[in-house]
Formats: sequence, structure tokens, C-alpha cells
Amino acid sequence: MRFAVIGTGMVGQTLADKLVALGHEVMLGSRTKDNEKAVAWAEQAGPNGHHGTFADAAGFGEVVLNATSGTVSLAALRAAGADRLAGKVLVDVSNPLVFSAEGELSLNPVNTDSVGEQIQREFPQARVVKALNTLSAPVMVDPGRVPGEHNLFVAGDDAGAKAEVVSLLQEFGWPAGSVIDLGGISSARGMEMLMPFWIQLMRAFGTTDFNYSFKRAE
Amino acid sequence: MRFAVIGTGMVGQTLADKLVALGHEVMLGSRTKDNEKAVAWAEQAGPNGHHGTFADAAGFGEVVLNATSGTVSLAALRAAGADRLAGKVLVDVSNPLVFSAEGELSLNPVNTDSVGEQIQREFPQARVVKALNTLSAPVMVDPGRVPGEHNLFVAGDDAGAKAEVVSLLQEFGWPAGSVIDLGGISSARGMEMLMPFWIQLMRAFGTTDFNYSFKRAE
Repeated sequence: MRFAVIGTGMVGQTLADKLVALGHEVMLGSRTKDNEKAVAWAEQAGPNGHHGTFADAAGFGEVVLNATSGTVSLAALRAAGADRLAGKVLVDVSNPLVFSAEGELSLNPVNTDSVGEQIQREFPQARVVKALNTLSAPVMVDPGRVPGEHNLFVAGDDAGAKAEVVSLLQEFGWPAGSVIDLGGISSARGMEMLMPFWIQLMRAFGTTDFNYSFKRAE
Repeated sequence: MRFAVIGTGMVGQTLADKLVALGHEVMLGSRTKDNEKAVAWAEQAGPNGHHGTFADAAGFGEVVLNATSGTVSLAALRAAGADRLAGKVLVDVSNPLVFSAEGELSLNPVNTDSVGEQIQREFPQARVVKALNTLSAPVMVDPGRVPGEHNLFVAGDDAGAKAEVVSLLQEFGWPAGSVIDLGGISSARGMEMLMPFWIQLMRAFGTTDFNYSFKRAE
């Protein structure tokens, strides 16, 4: 299958590496045509790794993964082009982190809106699924880094798109039963609002190799 | 020991019941002297159960639990009186939930502030510890309702106060190792921002008998 990964940071490259390792074709998209990181990534990725602009990538991919920072995701996806996103599953992995000059973390949007919702509103033809924004990139593609059973979450208005994303997560190594469906895309709000807590846990644990696991009464 | 529980709702009554069952003396505080719910609670609680105003309760308790809605906590604690809170451990259990006319949930304060921080700022002599706001009241006082190991969190600027709260949580049935220290009171922000996610999970699971459990690499 052909995937577009929008964003050349650590999350984007980790997802792109995993997709290539699984035998898929991947184009890593960046703002400019010859972004140094995207070129370097494609060179080491082998024949199934490609690079291009956001628009090139979105045109190439049958499925699009948004791995940009949530504060610039709309701009990146506008550059990708609404027509190239129409009808496609768009997995939104972003978190809208804002760091103040003092290093204090906040989110924007937050509370009454989310990046997932912003994207779905602006690109109504895209089949947006919020997923994978609740844990570190290495664990996203290698759940075995964390022992035992632990959970991922999906939110989106298109049930078929969510089912496709759950299949992709199974390819990444996540048992189907580990993925909890939180409902419509407005649930992206609660998923994005986890980030400050996640960062506090990272500081408490001294590692990014941890994840949510929900215990509940049967 | 003598406890003040500020707030007569389900959370306050559940905590008050548990404290009485553990042999403590409890005064349930409300805005007015003869609040119907507080009187009824004290009558069924036996000789160790008392009722009074917020100020009566804060004067009575050696430890104060804030179980009011987070949107009115500051007003309730102002009525309790800064002098009656000074030097005492103040456990802030609140969440600042706001429901719009359409039933949509948001938080206020959020993102760049929290109820826990507001309380600590306004009552600098109180030893504020954010705790227990991350799960349902029945599970707060009976962790065995949820199978296996699962976690609570504390945040506060006073290490001694946090240690006292961890002891209290152990009385409630929580193993000491189940309580994760998230650092200073500013971490109340991340804890309060969990609530939209918790509500989504409640809808997905169809029960409030669930809780966070963190899996991590050793």
C-alpha cells in the first residue's frame, strides 16, 4: 500500500521507517521539495522510500498520516491540498504543544476544540481518525517495548476509516483488542488534553517507554 | 483523627462515609448551617459524623478535603476561611467541569492554570495536595472494585503533606506503590485535564469502575 507521511520529525520518520519495514511504499512529505531530512530519510529507506513536498506526498499516498506539530498541521495540510486528501483515511497523530519562553507547556487549540476536529472541519472530504498521539514514537511502532497489555485509542466520525486504522495498528503489532474506540472526532479533544499528564509521567518514570493500560470491572 | 469534608455531593459523602468507617471523626461542611443533605448524612453516620458550615468544618478538621465542584471551590474555601485552613493538609479532589446548554463539557480553569494551583495561590498557608480527582468516588474508597493493580496520582509543593495523603490513601486501601507522585502543584493541571478523556472512557466502557494503570519498561 502507498502511504504519505506529512512531517519529517522524529514521529514522522519513525512511522515511515515502520511502514517501509512492513513492505509498504512511503513518501515523506515536507514543506520544500528537497528538505534535507526527507532526502536523507529516503536515501537510507531503500527503493520503497520516497520524498517530496506535502502535495507530492498527499498525491502519492492512499492513506495519509499527519505527523506535524499540531500547531502547524492545518498549514501543512492546506499545502498538501484538499483535493489530494479527499476520500482518503487521514490519521492525525499530532499534539498542539506550545512552549512559552519560560519553557512552560500549554496546548492550542484545547478544551473546546482540537486539532483533529479542526482538520475534519477544514477537510470534510478526508476521513480523519485521531490515533497514536498518546504515546512515544518508538512505542507506537513497537508496543513490545512496554510489558504486558496496554492501550491505544481512536476517535473519528467514519467507522470504516477507524476500522482501517485499527488494521494498520495491528500491522504495527497492536492486538485489535488493545485499541479503544472513543467515538466521534470530538473525542480528539480528550486525547490531546492527555499530553501535559503524559509529560508529567515521563518525568516521574524517567522513561518514554510507558503507556496507558485500563483496568476495569468485567 | 478529625476531618473536614467541604461539599455535600456524592464525592463528599462517599469520602465522609469511608472516613467514619475507618474510625475518624468527620464534619461535612456546606454553605448553610442546616443543609438538608449534610444533616441527613450526619444523622445516619453515627456519633463520629457531624455537619456544619464550611467554616465550622474547616475549624473542626485537622485535615480538609475539598469535594466541591472545581468551579466553586475558591468560593467555598473563602467561606471556610484562610485562618482555619492555615497549616493544614488540604486535599483537593475537585474537577472544574462546565457543561454548556448543549451538554458539551469543558473545563475552567484549564491549560495554563488549575483549581489546585488557584487554591494554593489564594491560601498559601494551606498545604494543598491534588489527589483522587482522576476516578469515580466509589473506586476512590474501594480500589478493589477494579481488578489488578492500578494507579492514583498526587501533586503538591509540600512533600510532607503528600506523604500524609499517601498514608490516608493507604487507609482507603491503596497500596503505597500505587500512588504516583507527579511533582509540584502545577501538575494539578495535567490531572484535571484528564477529565474529558475519563468521560469518553466511561461511555466506551459503560461503567465507572475503571482506572488508569501504567505499564512501563523496568
